[in-house]
Amino acid sequence: MIYLDNSATTKTDADVVKVMADVMTNVYGNPSSLHGLGVKAERLIEQARKIMAQELGVSPQEIIFTSGGTEANNMAIKGVADAYQQRGMHIITTEIEHPSVYDVYKQLEQRGWRVTILPVDHVGRVRPEMVEQALTEETVLVSIMHVNNEIGTVQPIAEIGRRLKNYPKVLFHVDAVQSFAKYPIQPEQWGIDLLSVSGHKFHGPKGIGCLYMRRNLMLTPLLAGGGQEQGLRSGTQNVPGIVGLAKATVLAGKQREAFLDRCQAWKEWLIERITTEIGEVRVNGDVTRDGGAPYILSFSFPGLKAEVIVHALEQEQVVVSSKSACSSKKELPSRVLKAIGLGDEAAIGSIRISMGFMTTEEEVRRSADALLKVIPSLQQVIKVRKR
Amino acid sequence: MIYLDNSATTKTDADVVKVMADVMTNVYGNPSSLHGLGVKAERLIEQARKIMAQELGVSPQEIIFTSGGTEANNMAIKGVADAYQQRGMHIITTEIEHPSVYDVYKQLEQRGWRVTILPVDHVGRVRPEMVEQALTEETVLVSIMHVNNEIGTVQPIAEIGRRLKNYPKVLFHVDAVQSFAKYPIQPEQWGIDLLSVSGHKFHGPKGIGCLYMRRNLMLTPLLAGGGQEQGLRSGTQNVPGIVGLAKATVLAGKQREAFLDRCQAWKEWLIERITTEIGEVRVNGDVTRDGGAPYILSFSFPGLKAEVIVHALEQEQVVVSSKSACSSKKELPSRVLKAIGLGDEAAIGSIRISMGFMTTEEEVRRSADALLKVIPSLQQVIKVRKR
Repeated sequence: MIYLDNSATTKTDADVVKVMADVMTNVYGNPSSLHGLGVKAERLIEQARKIMAQELGVSPQEIIFTSGGTEANNMAIKGVADAYQQRGMHIITTEIEHPSVYDVYKQLEQRGWRVTILPVDHVGRVRPEMVEQALTEETVLVSIMHVNNEIGTVQPIAEIGRRLKNYPKVLFHVDAVQSFAKYPIQPEQWGIDLLSVSGHKFHGPKGIGCLYMRRNLMLTPLLAGGGQEQGLRSGTQNVPGIVGLAKATVLAGKQREAFLDRCQAWKEWLIERITTEIGEVRVNGDVTRDGGAPYILSFSFPGLKAEVIVHALEQEQVVVSSKSACSSKKELPSRVLKAIGLGDEAAIGSIRISMGFMTTEEEVRRSADALLKVIPSLQQVIKVRKR
Repeated sequence: MIYLDNSATTKTDADVVKVMADVMTNVYGNPSSLHGLGVKAERLIEQARKIMAQELGVSPQEIIFTSGGTEANNMAIKGVADAYQQRGMHIITTEIEHPSVYDVYKQLEQRGWRVTILPVDHVGRVRPEMVEQALTEETVLVSIMHVNNEIGTVQPIAEIGRRLKNYPKVLFHVDAVQSFAKYPIQPEQWGIDLLSVSGHKFHGPKGIGCLYMRRNLMLTPLLAGGGQEQGLRSGTQNVPGIVGLAKATVLAGKQREAFLDRCQAWKEWLIERITTEIGEVRVNGDVTRDGGAPYILSFSFPGLKAEVIVHALEQEQVVVSSKSACSSKKELPSRVLKAIGLGDEAAIGSIRISMGFMTTEEEVRRSADALLKVIPSLQQVIKVRKR
C-alpha cells in the first residue's frame, strides 16, 4: 500500500514508538511527584522542551505541551482573547484556516468578538498589506496558518510578522501544524507571538503537540487544575507522548532539507505527468518552490467526485484523500477550495496527495500510474452517462 | 523499588504498551479519513468506546474521549455551565475536590457564577442532605468526586444521585478519576449525568481519558475544530491512547474484586502495625471497607515534614507521596486535610500510600518495615532538636 495522506496523519516512526514504549515501561512516574521517579519523568519533559525550543530558536519556558494541534489552536486563540479583551474584541484571520482555528471564531463571535476574515488570492495566499489594512484600535490578535493543509500554500508569515511589529499591542498567532519540523521556523525573527504544533503530522505520536508562547504574554488557561506547564495547561503531562514528540522533531531536523528537495522534484514531475496526460484537471495552490509546500498536491477533476476517486485509487493500493481528514466526512465542498475560486463541481472533484518522510520515488511513480489509470476511466464513465 | 504512589500515576501495563505500539505501527490512519486505513482506525476507536460504555453500563454514544481526567473535568463543568447558564448560575461542590474541578470554579466565579462549597466531616464525607439543602432555583450543576485522591474517602454518590433525581433540571457530575476501573460504577442507576475518567490511574496510558455524558445533554465544547467525538471534542483522536485506555479497563475488570479485597487486608494490617508501634500518628479518612478506598492510606505524623518522610522512605526503596502529585510542589498544607480538621502541623506531616494492581504483599510488608524504621528516627531527631 502506498500511503499518500501524510497531511491527515503520518505513520509513527519506529524509533518514536520504541522510545515511547521505553518511557511507559521505565519512567512511569508522575512528573509532579517529589520522589526520584517523578524527578526522572520531569527531566525527560524538560529535555523534550529544550529540543522543541531549539527547533524554534526560542526559550524552553516558552514551550507549553498540549494534547495536539487542535488544543494548541483553541488554547492560543481563546486564551489570548480572554486575557486581552479589555484591549478590544477584534481578531483578523483568513478564509482558509483549519477548522480548529476557524470554528473557534464562531464560538468567539457568540461572545461578542468581531472577526475579520481576509480573502486569499487564486493560489490561496493572503496579501500582507491587507492584514495591515484590516487592523483597528480594537485588534487583539492576528491568526494566520503557515502551510495550508488542503492545498499547501505557504503564507508570507515573516512578511506579515514584520509589518505587525509596528503594532506591538497586536499579537500574532500562527498555526504551523502542517509546516513545523518540515520547514525551519523562527518565531522571534518572524515576529510570531504564538505558534501551534502537532506531533502526528511528522511521524510523531497522536495526542500530543505544543504551543509556543512568547514570554510575558498573558493567556487564560483552557484547562484549570494542578497547575502543570507553568499553570497554563493543567493535567498530568503525557510523558511518553512528549518524549515521542521531541524524538520525531529531532529525526525530522536531520532529513527535512533532503525531504523538501525530493518532494519538489516529485511534485513537479507528478504535475507534469498528470496535466499532460489528463485533459480536464486543475492544479490547486501555488506550485512554485517558495509558494507551496512541496509535500502537498491538490488536483481537481471537475465532474468527478473525490470520494469515488479516493476509493478507486485505493483499489490500486494508493491512499490519498478528499480534502482534509478533519472535514472529509462532511458533505460540503471544501471551504478552502471555494476560497481560491473553485466552483462546487471542481471543489467536489478534488483530491489531495500528501507526502511524508517515508514516501519513496517508486511510490510516487506508482501513484502516478494509478492516477492515469483511474481518472480517465472514471471520466469516461461520466461522459457515457451524460450522453 | 517499591512503588506506592499509584494514586499519582501507575506503571503502564505491559499489555497496554504492547497494544499501543502495535496500533502506532500498523493502524496509523486518521480515523476521520475515508480510506481503509482511516476506517480501520475508526473501528478501533468504536471498539474501545464500546468497552468503556460496557464498563459503565451506558451507551457508546455517551462516551467522549479526552486527553485525560483534567480535560474531562474542565470540559464537563465549563461545558455544562456555558450551555445551561440561562437556567441559572449556581454550582454545588465540596471542599475536597481535585484542583481540576476546584480551580475551574475559580474561573467560573470570575464569570459571575456562584459556587457553594460544601464542608465534609472528619473523615472527608459530604452529607447527602446538605447537597439537597444547598439546591436553589439557580442550581445548574452538582459536582462531587467519587473517591478522594488524598485520603480515599468514598462519597455517597448513589445516595446523592438518588436525591437529585427529584430535581431533573440539576445535573450531576462525578469526578471518578480515582475510582473508575477499581470500583464498579453505574451512572444510570446512580443518577449521574457526567463522569470523568483518566487512563493513567489504573495502569493505562497517560494523556488519555474520557467523559461519560448522558444522552440529550447540551455541552459547549472546550475544543472547537474538526468536529470529532460528535462535535463535542475536536482534534484527531489519539487512537493508540484510546485503545490502551480500553485495554487497561478490560484488564482492571478482571482483577478489581481480588484487588479491593487484598488491599483492604493490607490497609488494615498496615494501620494496625503503624498505630501500634508509632505513638504520634493519625490515620486520615475513612478506614471502613465501605467508607474508604482500600488502596489509599493517609497517615499524619505531626511535627514531621512530609517531604522529609518521602525522601527518607525513598532511601529505603519505598516510594510514597506527600499529598497529591498535582499539588505536591506547592508549599501550602493540603486543602483536603485541612477540610477534615487537621491543623497545619498534622497536614504538613502527612503522607499518602497508594496501592495499585501490581502491588504485592511482600512490598506492603517491606514498606511497613521501612516506615517503622524511618518515622521513629525522624521523630527522635525532632525531639532532640526541641530540647
